[in-house]
Amino acid sequence: MARAGALMSAEIAEQPAVWRRQLEESTRQVDAVARRIAEYDPRMILFVGRGTSDHAGLYGKYLTEIVLQLPAGMVSPSTMTAYGARPALDRVLMIGVSQSGGSPDLVHSLEVARQQGALTLAITNQADSPLAQAAELELDVLAGPEQAVAATKSYTAQLLALYLIFDRLRGGSPDSAAALPDLADRLIAGDDGVRTLAQRYRFASRLVTTARGYSYPTAREAALKLMETSYLGAQAFSGADLLHGPLAMIDPQVPVLAIVADGAGGQAMQQVISRLAEVGADVMCVGNADAVAAADAGVALPAGVSQELSPLLEIIPFQQLALHLAVARGGDPDAPRGLKKVTETL
Amino acid sequence: MARAGALMSAEIAEQPAVWRRQLEESTRQVDAVARRIAEYDPRMILFVGRGTSDHAGLYGKYLTEIVLQLPAGMVSPSTMTAYGARPALDRVLMIGVSQSGGSPDLVHSLEVARQQGALTLAITNQADSPLAQAAELELDVLAGPEQAVAATKSYTAQLLALYLIFDRLRGGSPDSAAALPDLADRLIAGDDGVRTLAQRYRFASRLVTTARGYSYPTAREAALKLMETSYLGAQAFSGADLLHGPLAMIDPQVPVLAIVADGAGGQAMQQVISRLAEVGADVMCVGNADAVAAADAGVALPAGVSQELSPLLEIIPFQQLALHLAVARGGDPDAPRGLKKVTETL
Repeated sequence: MARAGALMSAEIAEQPAVWRRQLEESTRQVDAVARRIAEYDPRMILFVGRGTSDHAGLYGKYLTEIVLQLPAGMVSPSTMTAYGARPALDRVLMIGVSQSGGSPDLVHSLEVARQQGALTLAITNQADSPLAQAAELELDVLAGPEQAVAATKSYTAQLLALYLIFDRLRGGSPDSAAALPDLADRLIAGDDGVRTLAQRYRFASRLVTTARGYSYPTAREAALKLMETSYLGAQAFSGADLLHGPLAMIDPQVPVLAIVADGAGGQAMQQVISRLAEVGADVMCVGNADAVAAADAGVALPAGVSQELSPLLEIIPFQQLALHLAVARGGDPDAPRGLKKVTETL
Repeated sequence: MARAGALMSAEIAEQPAVWRRQLEESTRQVDAVARRIAEYDPRMILFVGRGTSDHAGLYGKYLTEIVLQLPAGMVSPSTMTAYGARPALDRVLMIGVSQSGGSPDLVHSLEVARQQGALTLAITNQADSPLAQAAELELDVLAGPEQAVAATKSYTAQLLALYLIFDRLRGGSPDSAAALPDLADRLIAGDDGVRTLAQRYRFASRLVTTARGYSYPTAREAALKLMETSYLGAQAFSGADLLHGPLAMIDPQVPVLAIVADGAGGQAMQQVISRLAEVGADVMCVGNADAVAAADAGVALPAGVSQELSPLLEIIPFQQLALHLAVARGGDPDAPRGLKKVTETL
């Protein structure tokens, strides 16, 4: 039998290679998708996804609002599947994100959206998947077969695919992401440090993740990784929402994992970090050197990365943390209990 | 010193009276707001709020998608405050929801939206609040002063205000909600049963809430109430998202609180309830009689309530649960640690 977490470990390490492949091989497909979107001239963008892919969609929502200055929303598939809604979607771009491209509710949502006049785009890791077939446009994230149930490389490949499309739409070039794979290689090499850090949470039953702006999807995805591999109760909050209520449950026994990257989202976290200090919270920080130095523990991110690309790096220490914590607790993050790789919801 | 939870208890019990006041006194204001929205003819609706009010906005999102058949989104205020986004918002209706109408990030979001061409509506419990002044339209939810830090009556008053506007937009009349206050009175009278039920969770350190469709905001709000009063780690998931990963952390030691109401959302929960049974989860159900009978424990909702109005009733047993659990644990839900009534985030 394979070592527990061997697949997840290999897929975490593979991420820089996946990104290099995307940067080399997907330019034509990205250009074609961006050209069609520009022609269509959407007045808003909707995202639909589940689990990890929903977090990639949330990242896309921030890109939409900040880079394209368009309104954006996350679709609740149940409105179309369970309630039969047929919304008016002319000049709406709907982007479906899914590793497998197989969940029936997502396929149905894109089919309905297309019938209702939306331009539809499927971002999947399966070029021939039902979701890719349902959409007018598709972009393959080129992550290669993902075998661990806990998605890692497909997530950052989805983020990069979204970044490349949105950056192309504002006239950017893939060169802006060229330095990223090497930076990720160095971050991944810090794995031993994260393994040591994981010991700190060996007996925690719950924890909280928090961030703002572009890093908020990282907080959500980090919480999901910890839940599905280590069976922890991990809760993600936008830093602002945390202050509106959930702060009450934070005491020194509830670990907080914060992302404080360079840029506006990280700056907006200062108010949150101050309040957490006032209630005596134990804060582990993934972020810039200053924020890490001020925290109880942490992992420093490489300097000089744009705030839009930072989420691709930020999630890596959390993937490693989920892996090591699961193994330390006697679990196998490659095959968590009760889960299959492809979840079909209706 | 007052009995712990006296304020929250009184405000829970006051809800039917608040709704009667709204049904009697807000018809003219609702009509005026609905008329202006109809003239403006929005092509999409955005909601912005924090904490409890964000959950009311999420309910409004389902109304938008299902009743008005329009696309909808939840705004991340940080895109406008921290990142300075100035999205194009012509023919967009933006609805700000806030009990106090005082949080600077919400006020700023509505100001920006109005400058950018959106029609803006403030739904608050403070007619002269900064949020109401920032918006072109306002609707007072008439809940009266809310003193407990944990919001209860202002939440269901926000739900009813949203329902009345959307129902008016499709040509309905407030009569459709006329039976609701009496039904709520009867539900509230079942308080002793909920107090007994609270004993079941006396020593739980975390739990999960779940629902789909119109009831999903109830799951979110129930989790927040439990977090802010009882300091539990309470996590809310859409039933479909629960199956995409977090299911792994569910075992018989993690209580699940499910909402299974009449209607499409409740039907869509059957797949979720079946999977929870397979992993041996302990399920408490607030919902229709069949679903409650099949669960380990539960509170039955009155029959014959439309799926759109059901959320107003569904939350009540959870408000009572949060209250009794907090008191049983030695806390005071009127004044949870670390929180103030009005939270100001930037």
